[in-house]
Amino acid sequence: MAQAETAAIKSWQSVPFTKVAIDDAFWQPRLKVLKSTTMKACLDKCEETGRIANFAIAGGLMEGKFEGIYYNDSDVYKVLEGAAYALMTDRDPELESEIDRIIDLIAAAQESDGYLCTYFTLEAPDRKWSDMEKHEMYNGGHLIEAAVAYFEATGKRKLLDVACRMADHYDRVFGPGKRHWVEGHEEIELALVKLYRTTGEERYWKLALWLLEERGRGHGVGAIWDKEEWGPAYCQDDVPVRDIEKVTGHAVRAMYLYTAMADVVHASGDAAYVDALHRVWAHTVERNMYVTGGIGPSRHNEGFTHDYDLPNESAYCETCAAIAMAFWNHRMNLLFGDAKYADVVEREMYNGALAGISLSGDKFFYVNPLASKGDHHRVEWFGTSCCPTNLARFLPSIGQYAYASSDDGLVVNQYMNGEAALEVKNGTNVKVKQSTAYPWDGRIELTVSPDRADRFAVRLRVPGWCRGYKLTVPDGQVPGSEGLVDNGYLVLDRHWMPGDNVILELDMPVGVVRSRPEVEANQGRLALQRGPIVYCMEQTDNPELSCDDFTLAAREPLSVEHREDLLGGVTVLRGKAAEGKSCLFIPYYAWDNREAGFMQVWVREAEDRHLYRY
Amino acid sequence: MAQAETAAIKSWQSVPFTKVAIDDAFWQPRLKVLKSTTMKACLDKCEETGRIANFAIAGGLMEGKFEGIYYNDSDVYKVLEGAAYALMTDRDPELESEIDRIIDLIAAAQESDGYLCTYFTLEAPDRKWSDMEKHEMYNGGHLIEAAVAYFEATGKRKLLDVACRMADHYDRVFGPGKRHWVEGHEEIELALVKLYRTTGEERYWKLALWLLEERGRGHGVGAIWDKEEWGPAYCQDDVPVRDIEKVTGHAVRAMYLYTAMADVVHASGDAAYVDALHRVWAHTVERNMYVTGGIGPSRHNEGFTHDYDLPNESAYCETCAAIAMAFWNHRMNLLFGDAKYADVVEREMYNGALAGISLSGDKFFYVNPLASKGDHHRVEWFGTSCCPTNLARFLPSIGQYAYASSDDGLVVNQYMNGEAALEVKNGTNVKVKQSTAYPWDGRIELTVSPDRADRFAVRLRVPGWCRGYKLTVPDGQVPGSEGLVDNGYLVLDRHWMPGDNVILELDMPVGVVRSRPEVEANQGRLALQRGPIVYCMEQTDNPELSCDDFTLAAREPLSVEHREDLLGGVTVLRGKAAEGKSCLFIPYYAWDNREAGFMQVWVREAEDRHLYRY
Repeated sequence: MAQAETAAIKSWQSVPFTKVAIDDAFWQPRLKVLKSTTMKACLDKCEETGRIANFAIAGGLMEGKFEGIYYNDSDVYKVLEGAAYALMTDRDPELESEIDRIIDLIAAAQESDGYLCTYFTLEAPDRKWSDMEKHEMYNGGHLIEAAVAYFEATGKRKLLDVACRMADHYDRVFGPGKRHWVEGHEEIELALVKLYRTTGEERYWKLALWLLEERGRGHGVGAIWDKEEWGPAYCQDDVPVRDIEKVTGHAVRAMYLYTAMADVVHASGDAAYVDALHRVWAHTVERNMYVTGGIGPSRHNEGFTHDYDLPNESAYCETCAAIAMAFWNHRMNLLFGDAKYADVVEREMYNGALAGISLSGDKFFYVNPLASKGDHHRVEWFGTSCCPTNLARFLPSIGQYAYASSDDGLVVNQYMNGEAALEVKNGTNVKVKQSTAYPWDGRIELTVSPDRADRFAVRLRVPGWCRGYKLTVPDGQVPGSEGLVDNGYLVLDRHWMPGDNVILELDMPVGVVRSRPEVEANQGRLALQRGPIVYCMEQTDNPELSCDDFTLAAREPLSVEHREDLLGGVTVLRGKAAEGKSCLFIPYYAWDNREAGFMQVWVREAEDRHLYRY
Repeated sequence: MAQAETAAIKSWQSVPFTKVAIDDAFWQPRLKVLKSTTMKACLDKCEETGRIANFAIAGGLMEGKFEGIYYNDSDVYKVLEGAAYALMTDRDPELESEIDRIIDLIAAAQESDGYLCTYFTLEAPDRKWSDMEKHEMYNGGHLIEAAVAYFEATGKRKLLDVACRMADHYDRVFGPGKRHWVEGHEEIELALVKLYRTTGEERYWKLALWLLEERGRGHGVGAIWDKEEWGPAYCQDDVPVRDIEKVTGHAVRAMYLYTAMADVVHASGDAAYVDALHRVWAHTVERNMYVTGGIGPSRHNEGFTHDYDLPNESAYCETCAAIAMAFWNHRMNLLFGDAKYADVVEREMYNGALAGISLSGDKFFYVNPLASKGDHHRVEWFGTSCCPTNLARFLPSIGQYAYASSDDGLVVNQYMNGEAALEVKNGTNVKVKQSTAYPWDGRIELTVSPDRADRFAVRLRVPGWCRGYKLTVPDGQVPGSEGLVDNGYLVLDRHWMPGDNVILELDMPVGVVRSRPEVEANQGRLALQRGPIVYCMEQTDNPELSCDDFTLAAREPLSVEHREDLLGGVTVLRGKAAEGKSCLFIPYYAWDNREAGFMQVWVREAEDRHLYRY
């Protein structure tokens, strides 16, 4: 196994969101709604739909039959994971006791050998491990993630012990010299690495590595694998992972796979994995990602089709895929220390993933098109309800994307008003305070307070959408490499005194975005973006316009107006369509929170006869 | 003669620069240098080169022969015009008495019938009016402009009387039923309109109109007209002016022609002129203008070639042509009330025209390329020295471009820190105060102080380079048409109280500029612009780079740094070429003020694999 060059792997450490106090106008209200509304709504739905009862029945605690679909256990685990995150920042004995109650049911449902999947226990005990598509280990992976989260939140081991017993069972059944297995829906691989990190048990990450290595070697079993229509590419079982060139198949599965690959590279240092990750990242981001960060254009396979196929109205863009894209890119950022990955995380945070939940916190998109005639709306729950429960665990942990620690200091990846406590590598503890109105304003004042004067590097991400910035450092503006961007970061490697102030002013103009010409759907169209926020136009704000029956000049100057009263407080862009009628753009994430009507991200561009294009 | 629709002609009034106090860090130092250095340098050169002596000799006040070229009188007139402007804002008895001395010489040189052109008086009295190319009326036009300026500056009529006698002479000799004439180098036409406005004598503008109408009808005489190489298009004598479709020939001549056409339309309302002006403006700006505002790519004819022919290193871009472009566009703005013309004025003010003069005020470019290998430099004077003397009259009057008055209020066209006094149409006097660090910062605070509460419109130009702005009006941000751009202006039509504050924040990001693909010279290249300032790269700041041997990624974030110590105080852009070497951009206008070396505006763009372009 060739080792990746040490230089290529940075292995930054994530700073847990529990160390990051968010106190801003953008995220704070959402986190409140998440706790007060979303979490309860998801728990209620899990109860109402029999998802929780399935555990009780499988555990023999009540009478009944399995209800729902074989992957429904995972929704309960994901809500538990989210609830654990919520508890970490905001203790709530009532919620905790409700979770404890559910954990008891889960524990009861575990079979004596560690096996845990209520569908098979109740419906098909003799068909275990006969079909890769039945999500046995997918469910198991989510159990592990919930268990780790709840253990970290409360110190309670019960669910973690359940998870370990299950993982040990997997490890006994599968592995070198034992049974082959390819899980149809990736998730277990990244979860096992997490379990390894929590327990220190090396066999867990080695099992993850083995599961990754099983792929693409003909070990897949079941109908899906044989299905001519999709073939093994659907579940990334077409080539060995180290040979991956292109993103294929089901979008969420692909993202979870790459996330796990990034996770195991930390330990394995396998250069082939590094190369594959770089290849598939470029292929995903440079040819197959919507401007919102959405991925997977096709409803057919919930996934990828061919390069540059990014239709707007029929865009599938599953919410889970956007979230998974953030997971993967977060890992990539930590692994390789390049801000371009944090750029993608940001794109998901403010667009692709965030659009999946209503401002009220109780309605959800599974599918996130970039254009609609008015017939696409958020709903309270889905038969396959992975998206609401994924949001329930993604959003409360959003603070984890803000910072990282590097071997020479700290990294600021995301800008949000608030404060964080980090330990830099030489043991110095540093408080970092951000004062900013991001994402509506590009000015960030950073106060760096080490507990003792010390030298270390502070890396500030200059977002990919930003072309010009001003940096003011404690001792005045310093021309030189300190002011220049390296791998997307300004690197301030200097002696820091408690209370040192850095001011970073990011140009945050109204930006006109155009696609590469290869994207047929966007030919002759433009989108608007300001800072990290992608904009769209909704009918309710644009009574003078009809869907797609207008054009916008790229030169049209737009009035930038912050409206506290609108959509929870948003900055809108207002101007005139080329035909003279007024038009108003709102953040894409906030669409479909009012009256139904058309929505467009990519609008037709008016003819431009100017000699110079800005 | 078809009348133009009333709606098409706005006929705004210029606000003279004498009503505009400029008190900013950008223009104020330049105006000081202009007065202390440039004016004196130009007068000295006119003396040294015999330009002033030619008048004394022609007037019989001293012995000697005509020295120099037949259009040299014009340089003296232009310096006088500039000196008059300088005196208007800053009385200076010493300068004034020097001007009076020169005026005495000019008056002496005038022949008894009013004819005035020292070359013909001294060298070829029998060849008057035999060759359109000999600049007789061109000289005369500049005399008129100087005379009007000096009369307005001092109230002294002597030079004005000389000018009127000369104009009356023209009017006796030329006109319907009298001699035909086409002046080879336009200038007299716009000057006669000016003389009409000062004296109220209608025959002057009618003579201007007649002179315009003579063109393109076979009346041109002399070698130039017959020269096959250029033909009559060289001096815009190829088609009647009302039929003009395209900009042709010598750039300065063409601009002075269109300036005069815009002037006479005020009085004539001729729809054919309006149409021709719109056509030729579009043809000039949309196909034949450099990003700096420079025009006329070819040294051969000092003018235009074919559409999109905009080579960089061999660009001719005469300084006078850039200045003339400002003259024309200023008139167009007043005539049609559209900010797009003021955009061009701004482009010239900060780039194409301003580059013509060194920061020291005593060295000049005649030719303004957009790339140089290091062999192009400003010099103190030229044999044909129209450019220094044009700068000497353009710069001191720069304040005139800042404001206009419309029939319903006032217009702010250019942003510069300072104060202006205007009368709005209903007799209310308004003081307008601008607090801004423009062009380095896009925030403008405008204090509007009418001498009594009154309703009128304040128009604020939103520059063409600006895509996003924030507007704060006295009673809070007002959504609605007041916040939207109309013909390039925000129109605040409201009741104004003394001291009302308006804050306009223009997004002023680092902008990447690209040409239309038709511009071969710029294919695969980009330029940088921030606000109105076009940037270039000079060797002295970029020791790691060789000329054109590097590429810049459009995504490269650039550090925006204001350097008080550099080039009189400039905001520079600093980043990395795609090859990793650091690079620094300075404003184009400030190039060639230090060590010689390569210079580039359009740099090669690095390959960009991103799916979305900002």
